[in-house]
Amino acid sequence: MNEPRVDLQRYFRENGELVEKRLRQLTAGDAGPFRVVKEAMEYSLFAGGKRIRPLLCLAAGEACGGDKSAALDFGCALEMIHTYTLIHDDLPAMDNDDTRRGKPANHMVYGVAQALLAGCGLLTWAYQVMAEAGLAGRDTPAIAARIIAETSRAIGWQGTMGGQSLDMLYTERGDVTLAEIELMEEAKTAKLLIAAVRAGALASGADERQLAQLTTFGEIIGLAFQVADDVLDVVGDQAKLGKPKGSDTRQGKTTYVDRLGLDGCRSLLKDLLARALAAVAEFDERADPLRALGRFIVDRTY
Amino acid sequence: MNEPRVDLQRYFRENGELVEKRLRQLTAGDAGPFRVVKEAMEYSLFAGGKRIRPLLCLAAGEACGGDKSAALDFGCALEMIHTYTLIHDDLPAMDNDDTRRGKPANHMVYGVAQALLAGCGLLTWAYQVMAEAGLAGRDTPAIAARIIAETSRAIGWQGTMGGQSLDMLYTERGDVTLAEIELMEEAKTAKLLIAAVRAGALASGADERQLAQLTTFGEIIGLAFQVADDVLDVVGDQAKLGKPKGSDTRQGKTTYVDRLGLDGCRSLLKDLLARALAAVAEFDERADPLRALGRFIVDRTY
Repeated sequence: MNEPRVDLQRYFRENGELVEKRLRQLTAGDAGPFRVVKEAMEYSLFAGGKRIRPLLCLAAGEACGGDKSAALDFGCALEMIHTYTLIHDDLPAMDNDDTRRGKPANHMVYGVAQALLAGCGLLTWAYQVMAEAGLAGRDTPAIAARIIAETSRAIGWQGTMGGQSLDMLYTERGDVTLAEIELMEEAKTAKLLIAAVRAGALASGADERQLAQLTTFGEIIGLAFQVADDVLDVVGDQAKLGKPKGSDTRQGKTTYVDRLGLDGCRSLLKDLLARALAAVAEFDERADPLRALGRFIVDRTY
Repeated sequence: MNEPRVDLQRYFRENGELVEKRLRQLTAGDAGPFRVVKEAMEYSLFAGGKRIRPLLCLAAGEACGGDKSAALDFGCALEMIHTYTLIHDDLPAMDNDDTRRGKPANHMVYGVAQALLAGCGLLTWAYQVMAEAGLAGRDTPAIAARIIAETSRAIGWQGTMGGQSLDMLYTERGDVTLAEIELMEEAKTAKLLIAAVRAGALASGADERQLAQLTTFGEIIGLAFQVADDVLDVVGDQAKLGKPKGSDTRQGKTTYVDRLGLDGCRSLLKDLLARALAAVAEFDERADPLRALGRFIVDRTY
């Protein structure tokens, strides 16, 4: 098994700055009469997210030997999409969270109507960014169209959105099974992470074999991400987490920790990391940032 | 000025059936665990809309000599997008309408959370349909990418979504000017209609001159559409309208009728129709369905 030899702090900083700069470029300009809702979108987009999805997208592209510029806009678009899901998840009709990343939730600042619109605005903007990235090159429209189609399936009713729908339905029920939680979490969280990895690979000219291996990596890391989130919800530092500790449990949601216990979750995480690294064993050292990201997703629980 | 010689009833019926059939194909299949939210999406998508946007899309394609099959999926996608805006507009945090097209609004049947998700699900699905339509042909990915980019700008924070944002902000204010209403309505309604016309034209290989003329047609028809809506809100048959007569006025929204009076609106509509027809005067008889649609949008107010 290859072990990551990457200075992750530096990688995070440098690529994080790249993503930050590009997001600022993409959202630059005066919004004229639409300044309220544009400000609402930017409030959440620049609220201090870790940019995991763009980083995964860039690292997957790098693993396939691609230039960062090919994957960057798709990564930024996926961060816009991720932000849209956070804004909507916090709404009173959804999880009803007042804070996010230690700051007031979008709807606490702009009201429910503008927050709802800001979420949809970010979703729409993400597609604009992906399509325009595709139009910029001669051979890239087909790649962009494929990424757009795949991303839509990953975040639509069969994916993120469907997962959130199940989450709402399950919250009202007491007898949710582990299989149901897994299905829900896969749809709600893993599919967008897989889409991020695949988008970076596709934008960087990955072949089908590379794509398949990276997809397996994404699937395992996606599951690990959710298990780690549930562990953090119990043991995490509230300031770091930006939301009240145990908030999922208080809403009556069944988590991996409820089902497997803390030790069971940690042992599962270790196993998942090993499987994720095995999935990308054929890649050379250019996949080390991706491996390091996989490790980071697990390590943050300790 | 060319006068439409089209049997509009027949055209509506035949092309409406084409759209209906394609929408059923696109949404066919069992949703498995996600059946609740998929049912919510289909509840509103098949609630008896007039399919104005797909019909405009098809008619614009026909005007450019295109085959219906080229524009059909883009038209269906725009109907999904239109349905998403209706579901969200009816939500309690927005216009708080209990009924739509004579039936209970989506959130009255499925609850606010699922209705909100169903709206976003339709928006996402629309992009999937457009991207997959692009991937189906060899030369079409670039066309699809352009339509996706344009549509995103038309429905995003600079368009439909931004218009709804202003609508919410203006509802709280008493001193809204006519210029502000025009800007808001253009964003909220006209831009999607323009996008429908342009999508049909682009999918059918329109040249830039044709595109420019059809865009002018779309801009004028978009304005006429909103003026006609305001007139219908005052004089329309409630059963036909599917919402309580005068519901806009009751919510304290300033309408064109408030500003120009009923006669002023009707005279404006006549003028707008003449200008719209003049904009497409260079097109041959294949643009007659488009001309007839323009006339229909105005005529429904009498």
